[in-house]
Amino acid sequence: MNKVEVCVSPALYPDYENKDAIVVVTDILRASSAIVTAFMNGVERIIPVATLEEAKSYKDKGFMVAAERDGLVRDFADFGNSPYNFTRGMVENKQIVYSTTNGTNAIHLASSGAQVLIGAYLNLDALVAYIIASDKDLLILCAGWKNKYNLEDTLFAGALAQKVLEGNNFETICDATNGAVDLYGLAKDDLLTYIDKVAQKQRLKKNGLDDVIGYCHKYNLTDLIPVLVDNYLSVL
Amino acid sequence: MNKVEVCVSPALYPDYENKDAIVVVTDILRASSAIVTAFMNGVERIIPVATLEEAKSYKDKGFMVAAERDGLVRDFADFGNSPYNFTRGMVENKQIVYSTTNGTNAIHLASSGAQVLIGAYLNLDALVAYIIASDKDLLILCAGWKNKYNLEDTLFAGALAQKVLEGNNFETICDATNGAVDLYGLAKDDLLTYIDKVAQKQRLKKNGLDDVIGYCHKYNLTDLIPVLVDNYLSVL
Repeated sequence: MNKVEVCVSPALYPDYENKDAIVVVTDILRASSAIVTAFMNGVERIIPVATLEEAKSYKDKGFMVAAERDGLVRDFADFGNSPYNFTRGMVENKQIVYSTTNGTNAIHLASSGAQVLIGAYLNLDALVAYIIASDKDLLILCAGWKNKYNLEDTLFAGALAQKVLEGNNFETICDATNGAVDLYGLAKDDLLTYIDKVAQKQRLKKNGLDDVIGYCHKYNLTDLIPVLVDNYLSVL
Repeated sequence: MNKVEVCVSPALYPDYENKDAIVVVTDILRASSAIVTAFMNGVERIIPVATLEEAKSYKDKGFMVAAERDGLVRDFADFGNSPYNFTRGMVENKQIVYSTTNGTNAIHLASSGAQVLIGAYLNLDALVAYIIASDKDLLILCAGWKNKYNLEDTLFAGALAQKVLEGNNFETICDATNGAVDLYGLAKDDLLTYIDKVAQKQRLKKNGLDDVIGYCHKYNLTDLIPVLVDNYLSVL
């Protein structure tokens, strides 16, 4: 049997680290939803960088750069963190350097796992099918908010864990997984009403950036699964 | 307005630290339930120590010592971590040195707050009344399990947060708090059935130590609230 675990914050990653696991990194509002969208729109590669300094040095070398902190695009960057920025016209066949408050750091941490995938509602069923077929442990790493627990990533972790656990070669005794599955069970029939109370909605709204919340909770718009290869993201 | 936050793991404490808050440390299975029980049975002081080395050096100086790791009593100690150990005959008018896998370290971390209290179902309503009257922020620190998220502490955090938020001078935008309140809402009508699935129940059961689970989920057996004073616990 393969095990399923959920790590609710990058700061807890050392306590959940599993070199044999597929690690699914999720940052629903908005990095993982934006990354999946970029691949839907034909981006060639995304290079996730943890610091703004790295992002800026790529910009100085001529790369297209998406960079934000606390939801706001950085002035040296071409654009920020909204999935709506990653249009076909902007990203098709391009390489993009990407740095966000929480998501890109989580991707770097996860690279100690057997494989790093990017998960969002947008590619949920494709992820589930791939993970069940892979027959490996699953560790879901929530990007959180500045190391704090967040609900939107936890709910997604619950959705993914529940579906993978329906495969008959997975089990869990992880409390974070069982808690996430139960919260998703509470929220799933009206996910957007539940999301109304998450702290990140208030942060995005304050900056007029909450227009993407509905989009980021749409199920299965694509079968593409972003995967970390060396230092960049491509698709499986 | 005062804010309510829940920190689901000692490893996240630096991200939630609030010097103006009352910090309630909880480790339902079993340290915080045992500490409350000890005061119910007339213990004079409990000296929480984080390491076994410290516990052993107190033992060598003649103190009564309770010490466990992974649920099992250490051989140099007088007893372990079960609330059933802390009987009146054993503890009345005594000073006890106490070291556990998760709980005592959490108490030491919490000492950067304005006041450190020990919370359990056993003293829930007394805690709620004190916190509401104190008119300070509330931070609930879950001891967790070796830095991992655990459900039994999260559920208690939800119970405490919900009752404090019913006071009209508290509010929260903390996702961990809202998640804990919702999980407690799911579980509260049949708390012990819900607790059946928590990882710690399996750990205790394996060692024949799960007899205390029902007791640790009894509401309001006392009005006593353990409080950290310098380096020891007394009662308010």
